[in-house]
Amino acid sequence: MLVNVRGGARRYRTVTFNSRRNEVLLIEQRLLPHEFKIVPARDYRETAAAIRDMIVRGAGAIGATAAYGLAQGARAFNGSSLSKFSQHVGKAYRTLKAARPTAVDPVNAMNQVLAAMKAGESVEERQALALAEAEEFANEDVLHCREIGMHGAKLIRNGMTILTHCNAGWLAFVDIGSATAPMYAAQQQGKKFQVLCDETRPRCQGATLTAWELAQQKIDHRIISDNAAGHLMQRGKIDLVIVGSDRTLGRTGEVANKIGTYTKAVLAKRHNIPFYVAIPLSTIDWNLKSGFDIPIEERHESEVLGAWGVSQFQISNFKFQNGKRRAYVRIANPSSSALNPGFDVTPPDLITGIITPAGIFKPKDLWRNRHRLTPA
Amino acid sequence: MLVNVRGGARRYRTVTFNSRRNEVLLIEQRLLPHEFKIVPARDYRETAAAIRDMIVRGAGAIGATAAYGLAQGARAFNGSSLSKFSQHVGKAYRTLKAARPTAVDPVNAMNQVLAAMKAGESVEERQALALAEAEEFANEDVLHCREIGMHGAKLIRNGMTILTHCNAGWLAFVDIGSATAPMYAAQQQGKKFQVLCDETRPRCQGATLTAWELAQQKIDHRIISDNAAGHLMQRGKIDLVIVGSDRTLGRTGEVANKIGTYTKAVLAKRHNIPFYVAIPLSTIDWNLKSGFDIPIEERHESEVLGAWGVSQFQISNFKFQNGKRRAYVRIANPSSSALNPGFDVTPPDLITGIITPAGIFKPKDLWRNRHRLTPA
Repeated sequence: MLVNVRGGARRYRTVTFNSRRNEVLLIEQRLLPHEFKIVPARDYRETAAAIRDMIVRGAGAIGATAAYGLAQGARAFNGSSLSKFSQHVGKAYRTLKAARPTAVDPVNAMNQVLAAMKAGESVEERQALALAEAEEFANEDVLHCREIGMHGAKLIRNGMTILTHCNAGWLAFVDIGSATAPMYAAQQQGKKFQVLCDETRPRCQGATLTAWELAQQKIDHRIISDNAAGHLMQRGKIDLVIVGSDRTLGRTGEVANKIGTYTKAVLAKRHNIPFYVAIPLSTIDWNLKSGFDIPIEERHESEVLGAWGVSQFQISNFKFQNGKRRAYVRIANPSSSALNPGFDVTPPDLITGIITPAGIFKPKDLWRNRHRLTPA
Repeated sequence: MLVNVRGGARRYRTVTFNSRRNEVLLIEQRLLPHEFKIVPARDYRETAAAIRDMIVRGAGAIGATAAYGLAQGARAFNGSSLSKFSQHVGKAYRTLKAARPTAVDPVNAMNQVLAAMKAGESVEERQALALAEAEEFANEDVLHCREIGMHGAKLIRNGMTILTHCNAGWLAFVDIGSATAPMYAAQQQGKKFQVLCDETRPRCQGATLTAWELAQQKIDHRIISDNAAGHLMQRGKIDLVIVGSDRTLGRTGEVANKIGTYTKAVLAKRHNIPFYVAIPLSTIDWNLKSGFDIPIEERHESEVLGAWGVSQFQISNFKFQNGKRRAYVRIANPSSSALNPGFDVTPPDLITGIITPAGIFKPKDLWRNRHRLTPA
């Protein structure tokens, strides 16, 4: 998507590959929204570290990063012994997998690369196949997001105000995003609308990443506190809600997503406002039988007890190129502690529809359409 | 209530008066929760400035501060001319009223003081009556909060988890508070319970003031992000909600309170969790006929776009005695703006009961009980 850099807006993907230098190129997301910077991961270990240290985050984005990282590792091998090559690739695979042990996307992506490599009869052929397949994975991610946008854009009419929560934007994928895809597609169709971004405490991905994305794309938007949506819905100021999902249960239609999503769904139901979830097929879990079986990560309390931002006057180890400094401030009473559940589960009765690359489905209809919703 | 100071816990009121020095003594609330300090307002102008600059905030607290401020002004008069004395008192009245022009409590409190002064036949008598009536106003505020606590404590059972939003604690009154009054009373009765404090973005009064109060009082509590209550209610982890109110409509039972209150009420209804509002009688508005007529203040967007906290490393003009510095950090994307409605309105169908000094009422029953609910 577009990024406003010196000299005008340029088009970027969250993850790309420089084949001449054998480098994975990543948007350094920890600097956003205060600085835009592309950083190279020079070997597969650096690529794994970039996943681990959250330079790159989001299901689609870390899947593609791992796929490129495996190709990068394969291409760094010197020699012609297929067995030594396999050993080397296995090591890269394990290193990349260990970078985010609970995520499923990097593993699926790397398995796709490994499967494609088998057709090669020499090290050189397999190296070429690895990169081609990683590129294929990244392109498919973009294609799927584009399809989500095509289906979802039909829901957006001129003059609408759309609420979104957290960041399910292009920064979480290779490009376009899931919850943002209908917005970007509707913009291309010339539709005029406004987006409200929940700030999404405690990590504020809405106020930072989503607002940044929309600003780059020149989509009219405002940030609101997580407390404000109920009031705005009551006063008729929100017409549509679109969010992403970390895991959607194919058997029940339940949606796990960033903490606060469930609250917005309850509010939308009370006000008869359509509530949609936009997802790539890879986030559908066909095994779990109940949302209560989804483990809800309890994150560190420091996220709730304070906030990260920038201050022109801050002394810290973390300095931006533009001279601003990133700072953590303690907001809360020093002797108090916090509870910090990271995700919640929204039941299907609150969800108007699930926007997928294969079309829009009622949550209860996912299971009977599972043949259409399973990645090839 | 108790404050842990060097040498152990001591009892304080939010507002008191030193008659020998003719000073209003205030807890400097802008330093909380990071520093506890009592500051003197040395004349009525300083008292007005303390209200204006939010050293003291909260309906009951600024009412008592204005009452004391008027007595302070009256007592500073030298001479025996009753007409010159009246002129002087009138000037103090106008100065104190102008400090928070939209608030009704300071005006009501000062009118009570003025009325009491009329019984005096000399300047000296009127000065004495002014202070006596200001003390009476403050003591009544405490008494009313104690009565709220007595009625509300019946709702709290051992083992409960109680959610509250923003700060309707003793810092907003002379002592005890409204939403916190049932908690403090239940604690005195030996009941064991836990309180969850919504952090209450954007100004975080829950994470700062309410958490501080509860910590001083050694009440078990945790801070949560405003996004977390829905999930916790869904998992059966909240048993009761008690909040305060800035304005309650006597005719309809609608409750205006800090932004986010309405959302918690909608969530509580969905999960059949009792939702109570604790109020002194002075916050009941017997005139307005609809919650839609309550003006909703649109506050400055900087509150949403960043946060105030402390950092050991911060360079700023605002330095605490303990060496920490108060800092504002910008969280949000620099080119984005925000919407910041400060309050919302909760309709009566979501409110289980309104806890008043005169007992607990269904919101729809306020009007027919208005004779019992009108301050004498």
